[in-house]
Amino acid sequence: MSTQLADPALIAARLDRARAAMRDRGVEALLVSVGRDLPYLAGYEAMPLERVTMLVVLPDGEATLVVPALEAARVTEMPGAFTVVPWRETDDAIGVIAGLLGDRRTVAIGDQMWARFLVELLERMPDLRVLRAVDVVGDLRMVKDDAEIEALAAAGAAVDGIAAELQAGRIPLLGRTEAEVSADLSRRILEAGHERVNFAIVATGPNAASPHHHPGPRVIEQGDLVLCDFGGTMAGYCSDITRCVVVGEPDPEVVDAWAVLRAAQQAAVEAAVIGTPCEEVDRAARRVIAEAGYGDYFIHRTGHGIGMEEHEDPYMVEGNSRPLVAGHAFSVEPGIYVPGRWGMRLEDIVVATEQGPRRLNRADHALAVV
Amino acid sequence: MSTQLADPALIAARLDRARAAMRDRGVEALLVSVGRDLPYLAGYEAMPLERVTMLVVLPDGEATLVVPALEAARVTEMPGAFTVVPWRETDDAIGVIAGLLGDRRTVAIGDQMWARFLVELLERMPDLRVLRAVDVVGDLRMVKDDAEIEALAAAGAAVDGIAAELQAGRIPLLGRTEAEVSADLSRRILEAGHERVNFAIVATGPNAASPHHHPGPRVIEQGDLVLCDFGGTMAGYCSDITRCVVVGEPDPEVVDAWAVLRAAQQAAVEAAVIGTPCEEVDRAARRVIAEAGYGDYFIHRTGHGIGMEEHEDPYMVEGNSRPLVAGHAFSVEPGIYVPGRWGMRLEDIVVATEQGPRRLNRADHALAVV
Repeated sequence: MSTQLADPALIAARLDRARAAMRDRGVEALLVSVGRDLPYLAGYEAMPLERVTMLVVLPDGEATLVVPALEAARVTEMPGAFTVVPWRETDDAIGVIAGLLGDRRTVAIGDQMWARFLVELLERMPDLRVLRAVDVVGDLRMVKDDAEIEALAAAGAAVDGIAAELQAGRIPLLGRTEAEVSADLSRRILEAGHERVNFAIVATGPNAASPHHHPGPRVIEQGDLVLCDFGGTMAGYCSDITRCVVVGEPDPEVVDAWAVLRAAQQAAVEAAVIGTPCEEVDRAARRVIAEAGYGDYFIHRTGHGIGMEEHEDPYMVEGNSRPLVAGHAFSVEPGIYVPGRWGMRLEDIVVATEQGPRRLNRADHALAVV
Repeated sequence: MSTQLADPALIAARLDRARAAMRDRGVEALLVSVGRDLPYLAGYEAMPLERVTMLVVLPDGEATLVVPALEAARVTEMPGAFTVVPWRETDDAIGVIAGLLGDRRTVAIGDQMWARFLVELLERMPDLRVLRAVDVVGDLRMVKDDAEIEALAAAGAAVDGIAAELQAGRIPLLGRTEAEVSADLSRRILEAGHERVNFAIVATGPNAASPHHHPGPRVIEQGDLVLCDFGGTMAGYCSDITRCVVVGEPDPEVVDAWAVLRAAQQAAVEAAVIGTPCEEVDRAARRVIAEAGYGDYFIHRTGHGIGMEEHEDPYMVEGNSRPLVAGHAFSVEPGIYVPGRWGMRLEDIVVATEQGPRRLNRADHALAVV
């Protein structure tokens, strides 16, 4: 966590906004564990392990961070924001959390909390009524403030540098396996200043027709289209970029399809103005691809929100009528996937601003030939 | 996933054992999502994202893997083991899962499933009775077969090599920050053949008194005790090792404490014979440390199970009376932490075997001076 993004006054203000949202929605307690709601609300990231960490927020009272004693020293105290309650190795941590809930029963649960801890709470409180914390906190987290946008821009610039190396042919491809190139990208993500690699998809030739292909033993050959989709977390905020390169001479069909994809991505970015429903951003990309006859090959939504989490609200997908507001940050990443042959995707992170859509990735949009 | 560890016959056999355990315990369905139960039971690792992947196992019928359509190509089909049901971007995936459950209500839930999906199921089925899947699957996963032990040994040997470099002074420390050394260890973990870095704790000087210290901006100085605890996942199985080095001349008190720690670790490893309760392994280490007067400074359990997950059952902790059986694999990692001054920990992975405890880490146990 960057300290700039987690000062006590900011954390206290976010908790107050969460409390107001809880009161509006009749939520009696908010439980947040692993996942990004916790750093957002407490400036602290829980270790995703079996020792429970839980922020308990009450609408009308204290916030309490229940944390394993041996991790308590990692927590930056936030006077006025929350109290830290450490539990020791043989303590009953779930009992401590149940005690803080008392007779409250309508409880909002962080999306990524391990189900284990909810199951253990339900065993003690079978009459718990649970709902998703995203209905309380999601609205708050979705709108990024200036410092958050600059953090996203810095992470974006870092992966832009890697994309440029890839496009310039300075990351070897021919004769290497997907897994080797993926490991190379992972190392570069760390070297570029990220504290964590979130993913480094390298999908080549026919493998690229699977949008979430797991990089494997396939060796890159002359003529392959190579899709690289990679990102990490830098100072608490995520990067995510996709670029494609061709090793050697590209197939004319691939060149034509890329022109369609690039136009589709451009149309979706241009559609991302304040007030536009998220689904319209999706439709803008889909329309261009469908008109070119590739509609059946664009098999996923156009984008996802991004922030402390690599995927978060708002999603650019049919059915999401939420209008864009200034500070929404999200990917715009249409793709075309022809089973058994090739796949391509082009992705930038975009922020909706009063001055129109702002791209946080600047790496070249051409299909690079290396 | 190594294909060797996920062949269809092995997967089918594991599912059958899970079904038998479900029938014994009156469990009507088993739901497994992100986390390591899924690769164990289906040879497939779900992406930890907002699109749900769920293996639904019924005690008397089919197993079904509900998976996002755009990830379906990642799944290796396992004829006779489970059926794949892909869902598309605008489908109701939770509804598909609810449909597979039908009127079954006693459901075992994977520990690491995102709480979000359990909350969404509970909204539709408020009368669901949930329990932890570890009570069904945990017993099975805890006992490693020969292929699993060799995978753990290979991962252990890989990090042993990094530890040896550290102890030989070939990883620069003096003048670097903890974060820089952590990034260096992370790169080496990938270079050594792991597909994923799980953690690379570097805690120096007084920071090492916090067992789960987050590597930060502190610059390593002459005389510092440097604790490095690192590991990753290699061919689906985890490594985890801790070694300490001193930069320059160590304090005599540190040398004495290390001798105590090393003896404690040795005692705990020797105690790890078949039939011994897990808590006795913890006590064996604790006794040596307490007798030397450091009892108050050993503030965590002695170890955790390891396998597909970095921390899993069985835990070497007071209160766990489970007797060791052949194939249990776990860390033995006592520590001594003097607040404000220094901290030290010594960790190997150990497997209980018919021939006695087998260490999977061989890196030198001395306090290295670099």
